[in-house]
Amino acid sequence: MPSNRGVVYLEPGKVEVQNIDFPTFRNPAGKTIEHGVILKLVATNICGSDQHMVRGRTTAPAGMVLGHEITGEIIEIGHDVEYLRKGDLVSVPFNVACGRCRTCREGDTGVCLNVNPERAGGAYGYVDMGGWIGGQAEYVMVPYADFNCLKFPDKAQALEKIRDLACLTDILPTGFHGAVTAKVGVGSTVYVAGAGPVGLAAAGAARILGAAAVLIGDVNRERLAHAKKVGFEPIDLSAHDRLGELVAEVLGVPEVDCAIDCVGFESKSQGSDGHVIEAPAVVLNGLMEITRPSGAIGIPRLYVTDDPGAKEKAAQRGMVSLRFGLGWARQTPVLKYNRQLMQAILWDRLPIGKIVNVTVISLDQAPEGYRNFDAGCPTNS
Amino acid sequence: MPSNRGVVYLEPGKVEVQNIDFPTFRNPAGKTIEHGVILKLVATNICGSDQHMVRGRTTAPAGMVLGHEITGEIIEIGHDVEYLRKGDLVSVPFNVACGRCRTCREGDTGVCLNVNPERAGGAYGYVDMGGWIGGQAEYVMVPYADFNCLKFPDKAQALEKIRDLACLTDILPTGFHGAVTAKVGVGSTVYVAGAGPVGLAAAGAARILGAAAVLIGDVNRERLAHAKKVGFEPIDLSAHDRLGELVAEVLGVPEVDCAIDCVGFESKSQGSDGHVIEAPAVVLNGLMEITRPSGAIGIPRLYVTDDPGAKEKAAQRGMVSLRFGLGWARQTPVLKYNRQLMQAILWDRLPIGKIVNVTVISLDQAPEGYRNFDAGCPTNS
Amino acid sequence: MPSNRGVVYLEPGKVEVQNIDFPTFRNPAGKTIEHGVILKLVATNICGSDQHMVRGRTTAPAGMVLGHEITGEIIEIGHDVEYLRKGDLVSVPFNVACGRCRTCREGDTGVCLNVNPERAGGAYGYVDMGGWIGGQAEYVMVPYADFNCLKFPDKAQALEKIRDLACLTDILPTGFHGAVTAKVGVGSTVYVAGAGPVGLAAAGAARILGAAAVLIGDVNRERLAHAKKVGFEPIDLSAHDRLGELVAEVLGVPEVDCAIDCVGFESKSQGSDGHVIEAPAVVLNGLMEITRPSGAIGIPRLYVTDDPGAKEKAAQRGMVSLRFGLGWARQTPVLKYNRQLMQAILWDRLPIGKIVNVTVISLDQAPEGYRNFDAGCPTNS
Amino acid sequence: MPSNRGVVYLEPGKVEVQNIDFPTFRNPAGKTIEHGVILKLVATNICGSDQHMVRGRTTAPAGMVLGHEITGEIIEIGHDVEYLRKGDLVSVPFNVACGRCRTCREGDTGVCLNVNPERAGGAYGYVDMGGWIGGQAEYVMVPYADFNCLKFPDKAQALEKIRDLACLTDILPTGFHGAVTAKVGVGSTVYVAGAGPVGLAAAGAARILGAAAVLIGDVNRERLAHAKKVGFEPIDLSAHDRLGELVAEVLGVPEVDCAIDCVGFESKSQGSDGHVIEAPAVVLNGLMEITRPSGAIGIPRLYVTDDPGAKEKAAQRGMVSLRFGLGWARQTPVLKYNRQLMQAILWDRLPIGKIVNVTVISLDQAPEGYRNFDAGCPTNS
Repeated sequence: MPSNRGVVYLEPGKVEVQNIDFPTFRNPAGKTIEHGVILKLVATNICGSDQHMVRGRTTAPAGMVLGHEITGEIIEIGHDVEYLRKGDLVSVPFNVACGRCRTCREGDTGVCLNVNPERAGGAYGYVDMGGWIGGQAEYVMVPYADFNCLKFPDKAQALEKIRDLACLTDILPTGFHGAVTAKVGVGSTVYVAGAGPVGLAAAGAARILGAAAVLIGDVNRERLAHAKKVGFEPIDLSAHDRLGELVAEVLGVPEVDCAIDCVGFESKSQGSDGHVIEAPAVVLNGLMEITRPSGAIGIPRLYVTDDPGAKEKAAQRGMVSLRFGLGWARQTPVLKYNRQLMQAILWDRLPIGKIVNVTVISLDQAPEGYRNFDAGCPTNS
Repeated sequence: MPSNRGVVYLEPGKVEVQNIDFPTFRNPAGKTIEHGVILKLVATNICGSDQHMVRGRTTAPAGMVLGHEITGEIIEIGHDVEYLRKGDLVSVPFNVACGRCRTCREGDTGVCLNVNPERAGGAYGYVDMGGWIGGQAEYVMVPYADFNCLKFPDKAQALEKIRDLACLTDILPTGFHGAVTAKVGVGSTVYVAGAGPVGLAAAGAARILGAAAVLIGDVNRERLAHAKKVGFEPIDLSAHDRLGELVAEVLGVPEVDCAIDCVGFESKSQGSDGHVIEAPAVVLNGLMEITRPSGAIGIPRLYVTDDPGAKEKAAQRGMVSLRFGLGWARQTPVLKYNRQLMQAILWDRLPIGKIVNVTVISLDQAPEGYRNFDAGCPTNS
Repeated sequence: MPSNRGVVYLEPGKVEVQNIDFPTFRNPAGKTIEHGVILKLVATNICGSDQHMVRGRTTAPAGMVLGHEITGEIIEIGHDVEYLRKGDLVSVPFNVACGRCRTCREGDTGVCLNVNPERAGGAYGYVDMGGWIGGQAEYVMVPYADFNCLKFPDKAQALEKIRDLACLTDILPTGFHGAVTAKVGVGSTVYVAGAGPVGLAAAGAARILGAAAVLIGDVNRERLAHAKKVGFEPIDLSAHDRLGELVAEVLGVPEVDCAIDCVGFESKSQGSDGHVIEAPAVVLNGLMEITRPSGAIGIPRLYVTDDPGAKEKAAQRGMVSLRFGLGWARQTPVLKYNRQLMQAILWDRLPIGKIVNVTVISLDQAPEGYRNFDAGCPTNS
Repeated sequence: MPSNRGVVYLEPGKVEVQNIDFPTFRNPAGKTIEHGVILKLVATNICGSDQHMVRGRTTAPAGMVLGHEITGEIIEIGHDVEYLRKGDLVSVPFNVACGRCRTCREGDTGVCLNVNPERAGGAYGYVDMGGWIGGQAEYVMVPYADFNCLKFPDKAQALEKIRDLACLTDILPTGFHGAVTAKVGVGSTVYVAGAGPVGLAAAGAARILGAAAVLIGDVNRERLAHAKKVGFEPIDLSAHDRLGELVAEVLGVPEVDCAIDCVGFESKSQGSDGHVIEAPAVVLNGLMEITRPSGAIGIPRLYVTDDPGAKEKAAQRGMVSLRFGLGWARQTPVLKYNRQLMQAILWDRLPIGKIVNVTVISLDQAPEGYRNFDAGCPTNS
């Protein structure tokens, strides 16, 4: 059995490359499984969320092998693996997913019901995500391999593009998910908050989705220069905080079709000048102001449920304060529904008057109606 | 010219039926228009959001004619109206919408760009919604009539069901919108927060959408008794506040597929026992706890942007504090996207490595990588 | 090892209950698998598509064990099955699906890429569907069991409703799929062609999806009487063939929002009176005539690729002749797309003039332009 | 009143530029309207469908002013036009649409119910499309102008890109519609049948939608050379007719994710070598063979309802013969629906057993069951 080495978390601020066990076909509960493969790593990444752990913003235990971004070559195969072969070069999603539960069947592999006894959703080398051993290592075991592995069609071609393909495990789909949930499409104008790796990936995703213009805001000049170099419109947030004006300088109007929050819960990274405090909601509220009516906002970054490192008490429990009236208080578009509901009523499918307990009153009874209004839908006539 | 009478807002807590002007074909800016019709009211409703105004929770001006739920018979027609006739009986959405702007064209008539100079979206008889005269009156003018009016196919049949059809202007589509945004479908289990009129309408909407079980929670026993009588599963929130347990008593599991918040910004109505304060986020956070992973929450009720009547300063600006980690922090389902993104990379459409500035390091450089991590996506290899 | 008995196809028109082998954990290629379960049947159905085989309309081989609608109790479990237990009562989709390939991951289990070497999609006890042994038997093996089995939450309750639940394996989802693809929603008016089992299931599906009115057409009086009894609007096609008129008698207009073809390739079953010939396209062309502009038609029934029993040569190869102009020749709604495409042009993302090779000519050159028109998009100016 | 000149259809093969009337604010029925604008043309196009008429393939009357692709400057405005100004430069969709009927409200402006007394859908300068005067002229009237016109934000910038922007009226949205209905997305492999203008527009649309590889097939070498020059993969159909092999030479596999038919009903244009006959279905059947299971086919081109110029009698009525088994006979994915349907049954919402008339029989009664099978869903047990 070959040796193995991996990146181990020791304490806040400290990781080390250590000798670790060679992977076996066992799940975190110790049960033997037949559906896994063992990979020799070809590439892995250090992710911003790894940094969350290493900075001590989570409850990650000492001794944990880190790394959830796994690209590698198959060197061993479990008995139940039917469609992969030794030598295949594969990309592994950071989500561990069984492929058999209700959410996996629906494509929501990020909240698999079976791979984490604590709550829905598992990951490799990550705190509270089921205890799956991480992949910043020489070798790693991937369960439910037929379901989870994406095989590259041509190995030589893939190795040439490994720098790009390594981004398939997390950062690129994460940026893409943000762009998709923000409903970016052909011709969209898009604002991305944050020019870090996830922001850049979201911007790249927006462009391949057909966006007309992709703006990317940050206070960091170097990041903005890079963003410009790779084809995006930089928005320098250190100038002033009237985001609408900054957007209008590029687009002619103070609004975008879509916005993507790539700052997330450590939103202080937004500012380096001292007066910017940790305030995740600041970013979101800003996005709500510049997003056009009926536009959408994507939020791909992790918001943790508990954040022991947060300064304010509310934030420790993952609370975020939002100006709901701006973003979600959109009115019901009645015209979109009233014809079909009329038909349901006329064909006796929906006795809504009875359900909401309509009481008929005359116009002159209206003031009294206002006083008595309680559990009903009084109809003037 | 016939006389007219309507319900007029005077001051917090006070409305009166007064003589008002007979409608003319002018918009609130005073411009003559040709696309309107004048209706003789057949039914209108008093809505919870009217109550918000009358309770002084908004900046509604004295003298305003109330009423945004309009069902009536056409008695006069503008020159540009082409497809309606005198005598037609029609339902009018509470949203005033031009039918010509970008959002109307897309079906988002609730945020029409042309009917309200203050912001997107107009309504009849409502504060800050463009100044359109309300319809709790004998006669009212409806602009852009061809676009806005829904004609009932058979007048006599419609008059028989007028108690039901009067709900088409607001409450039923609003409840339906909540159920639709909560993704209620055939076989769903649904929890509706609040057994007031909107909650009941949402519950009725959930049922016609095919829900298997519709639970509806409130502290008000009378409301719960009515909800049960019309076929829903009542959840008595006065018992205790462990919502999951109450749900499990009905469904066998402490979760639902979909949840709908029909309490909205006056969520204190939730409690009558004194210790329940105004806390809109309490309801939403509760819904996030009982909604299954990848389930959805619908929020049909109005959240105002500014709430002068609120007790806490943050709430006055419409701030709501949410536990984001629970509800929206769902992980990206990588497997849903990685194949198509791989193809984009392999065909040279997406140079993501360059975009996110990948730097290749060896496994042994990982600890240093963690220290240097900044604007990049270092790839171990 | 217990004995086993099953329904075996012998020759056109002839089936027999015979002793057959007890199931083993092997796939049709003979390979041992660990992901299967063995079920004791509790219910199965005879399906219209079984009849296709038995009538000799397919190339089904003699000796084949029939039956693809399987509901049963688990009595044995393979080593890789992790989430099912002995004693569980489960419903099995008629599609055999691996849960691991691209189409299964996308939810299209009807065209699984791995379970049938001939083409995409497998089934139990069915010709050309991968050789999986059928379930009109005492015992049957179900592969990829964690993925394929739907467990009933309460066994006793399920046994009480077994007549209904047995329809989950094929007929009800098939009818539902037809209604979904026909875009049936709340308030829809729906026409179902064919009052056989699939037609009735589609009608039931339409109702639970919220349809306002469900019409169901057939020539068979008994079927129509049953359809009426269970709440649908019967349309007697033996009266005459002006379908629009028959629809208008019920709805007031000669059109429906949605239509579902539940007759399929044996559309002669439509008539028993001699003058009705085999003409699958007749049904579809009729549906195109009565479906409103922008309405949809669902086609849930099987159209085989080769039909050796068909009378006409074209039909033997599964050809159907359609009036395309009526149903699919809908014009592009330009307004839906032109704004976003303008943005893509204005931001230099889409050099469409160059791509389609625009040549500028003057108005007076137009006649010549018409003569020269070939591979271009000449622009008058 | 200024003079006007336009392109007039005279007889098959013959058009002429003639003096024509200056536009007025009247619709084809002669009624005065207030919602129109008069444009001075800046650009228009000759379209393939104009050629259909000029070639005598339609029933277009002599004297008709041609042209449905209109880009121009507003010089006059009706009284009811509220949001456009003289001097605005606008793009006009080829579809005439009222913006007020049910289909327009839903965004399906291609089948407007009000602008054509013959059937749903209107167009300028086109046979059977409502009699609206065409725009291959100096001036033209556009009705429902607020709804129909897309204003360019910057006139000078727009004039610079007029060659591109002129394609917004028809060809580009038509190609885009084909790509959208074929479900082209990021990373898709796409095959476009036909390298004429619509094919090239569809290919360009596929690329902006994020396609990884866009193949475009034709027999015309010049067209293929142009397609290659603008970045697509040319497929030379004159080589041989095994389309799958030609596709595999480029993609490595004989299938694509999406296919778009840009040949349409004059599919003989496919071949110039004599042995290629008029056979619209040939193209579609070919596309069905190379499109992956669960892939989609877009059909943007016009299929006329009646084609007096067709050689075969069936084709004269717009009949197309399709191998349905290949393309649409996909099986129902039961797993997608069975859980929700189970819930509907368990909560007594869907008495499907009663609806489809389940009859319970024993296994031994199966052969008899097969004989008696008629209007039921017999359940073995």
